[in-house]
Amino acid sequence: MDQQANRLLSDITIIDLTRVLSGPFATMWLGEMGANVIKVEIPGTGDESRKNPVFVNGISSFFITENRNKRSITLNMKSEEGKELLKELVKKGDVLVENFRPDVMERLSLSYEKLAEVNPRLIYCSISGFGSYGPYTKRPAYDVVSQAMGGIMSVTGEKGGEPLKVGTSIGDIAGGMNAIIGILAALHYREVTGRGQRVETSLTDSVIALMQPENNRYFVTGKVTPRTGNHYPANCPYGTYHAKDDVFMIGCGKDDLFAKLCEKVLERPELAKDERYSTISARVAHYDEVGEILENWAADYTAEEVVEKLLANGIPASPILSIAEISKDPHFAGARQMFPKIDQPGVGEFTVTAVPIKFSGAEVSPQRPCPALGEHNEEIYGGMLGLSPEKISELKEKGVI
Amino acid sequence: MDQQANRLLSDITIIDLTRVLSGPFATMWLGEMGANVIKVEIPGTGDESRKNPVFVNGISSFFITENRNKRSITLNMKSEEGKELLKELVKKGDVLVENFRPDVMERLSLSYEKLAEVNPRLIYCSISGFGSYGPYTKRPAYDVVSQAMGGIMSVTGEKGGEPLKVGTSIGDIAGGMNAIIGILAALHYREVTGRGQRVETSLTDSVIALMQPENNRYFVTGKVTPRTGNHYPANCPYGTYHAKDDVFMIGCGKDDLFAKLCEKVLERPELAKDERYSTISARVAHYDEVGEILENWAADYTAEEVVEKLLANGIPASPILSIAEISKDPHFAGARQMFPKIDQPGVGEFTVTAVPIKFSGAEVSPQRPCPALGEHNEEIYGGMLGLSPEKISELKEKGVI
Repeated sequence: MDQQANRLLSDITIIDLTRVLSGPFATMWLGEMGANVIKVEIPGTGDESRKNPVFVNGISSFFITENRNKRSITLNMKSEEGKELLKELVKKGDVLVENFRPDVMERLSLSYEKLAEVNPRLIYCSISGFGSYGPYTKRPAYDVVSQAMGGIMSVTGEKGGEPLKVGTSIGDIAGGMNAIIGILAALHYREVTGRGQRVETSLTDSVIALMQPENNRYFVTGKVTPRTGNHYPANCPYGTYHAKDDVFMIGCGKDDLFAKLCEKVLERPELAKDERYSTISARVAHYDEVGEILENWAADYTAEEVVEKLLANGIPASPILSIAEISKDPHFAGARQMFPKIDQPGVGEFTVTAVPIKFSGAEVSPQRPCPALGEHNEEIYGGMLGLSPEKISELKEKGVI
Repeated sequence: MDQQANRLLSDITIIDLTRVLSGPFATMWLGEMGANVIKVEIPGTGDESRKNPVFVNGISSFFITENRNKRSITLNMKSEEGKELLKELVKKGDVLVENFRPDVMERLSLSYEKLAEVNPRLIYCSISGFGSYGPYTKRPAYDVVSQAMGGIMSVTGEKGGEPLKVGTSIGDIAGGMNAIIGILAALHYREVTGRGQRVETSLTDSVIALMQPENNRYFVTGKVTPRTGNHYPANCPYGTYHAKDDVFMIGCGKDDLFAKLCEKVLERPELAKDERYSTISARVAHYDEVGEILENWAADYTAEEVVEKLLANGIPASPILSIAEISKDPHFAGARQMFPKIDQPGVGEFTVTAVPIKFSGAEVSPQRPCPALGEHNEEIYGGMLGLSPEKISELKEKGVI
């Protein structure tokens, strides 16, 4: 947690009004890339996700995960003095990020237009469930709603089964990633033009954009991609199959790979010449038989052994891993350093998931632990805005901060 | 497709060596944000995904979708003259993106180090299955392998069922999004320091990063999040339920929302006071009974009617949509303009999926249709590098371009 290292965004100050997941995730990554992130929270309660389980020593581990790299100040933006303080912060900031419901900032008279008056270079980024305009703009939106309406559930699930959601908050995370892309692109444009602007993304639009290869198939054929579990209707063997103890993934689409599979792994070279299996379309026509041949062979080995044998012969394959294995894996945890530790006050050593991008000329790693509510009021209001200790005490007493 | 509009990245030239999905997707979005993308392809064959189905008038619709906004040149990077030409392009470029297997560019003597010698401001971005170092770096990696090893399959699927892949190429797309983030952050850093650098991401690391809320839960509890279909073990009713014709999603986690559901929608206010249902933990303990109550009611209505009734009473709910509905939806297709059309030579009007980020001060929209193989050889080699028509003919005859 070396704050002095060369960092990509160390000249950028972010005023972070976000709560829960999509927004905090975005500013956490920006912080990991070096940005100076000031998290602005409601006095007394703070970001509601401070109450999200699972707790460690009374602190929300969810909150720690998504709010490292930030300093926290409290601010009541409903009060007149609070609004003025926000504008002072905006004058010194480069980026403001918010993920309130679309009309909240307008009702507070803190819309982009108002804030751009005090800082025309401001980049103002909004993240919401459905975006700031359009018929659904006021609908409540959770991650599950963005998954349901964005199309990803319609193509996920067993063959013949019901639509399934993805087991992580893919709408929130993709929305956060798009907010980062939008902010960085707007920063570049500001460098060129000198002007800030408003940037917005929505969770549901973000899910729709994840679906572009499937969307394309629909636009061209008029047919919705059916749910097919782990298999592809147009290739074989390509998907998951059973070994003795567990399932494994194989991607053996090409004919020359299949010939190698038959000869070197199954030790049944005649199969590759059998007209039922020699071409992709023949194997697809005999999908179940190919699966039976493969699983009969694999029944003698563990999934780990199967994958080893396939990889040794150049056939794409992998185990299905969970975080229990990934977090101990020599590649992911070791070489790729995907799980750095932070030193969290009140908790101790705490493992997080890294930004999955490596830079040869800059350090990307946790800068700070997650802050206590209002921990940096003195530092920011005193140091950055220059308010006296008396003024800060007064603001506290009035409930402004 | 107005090339004169204010665009975020119109001062940036990208030398794009990528193929198939993750890389082409990344440069396609960068092109949509205005970058000048020069797609470098193998003479004669080009990007292998030019052969990916589904075809429209003989052209791969997959390829069009991921390669709009680019110009195409051909280049044989194995020839000495080809390497020199690539270096001339790199001198004029800002960013190079490649998604070969990790050792390919080194074997061609076109590693970051070599190219940084001719242009120290170059940002060189690599995307691969497992990254350029670590024990698995040489493993073959497809999207399905990144899903299998990144953990997302382990948490996706029915309760008690097998791990399931996400129905879109989430590893490829997330890897592409991380490449964009890396490139934009490095551009900012170059603006500050004057220096380029190497950036890299991997499909599998990208999937692991999507999983951070679930990873956190494991790090804190030591337990892997189980597969639970569309439901959450800790909240109720929160997930999908059946109406007369179809399933719908409801997110009615809080007690006050549940009370409203009972009173206003189910018209059974006594249920909210029943100690079996009055609190989240009580409802979780009676999960199946709550589901039965809800589905008994919903059996009289279509999913659309159910969602309408729930939303009218402020209870988060949604239908499960597929692209068939999304692409005709007044919000997504109408207001949010998620499906712009390009005019593709040889095809005509062709629908694509937009970048899901809106900018108030810059236009983000398709710039160009997708190019034919080598379509812009004269324009780039002649115009940008200043080669004579004779030299270009000679290079073509020798198979260098």
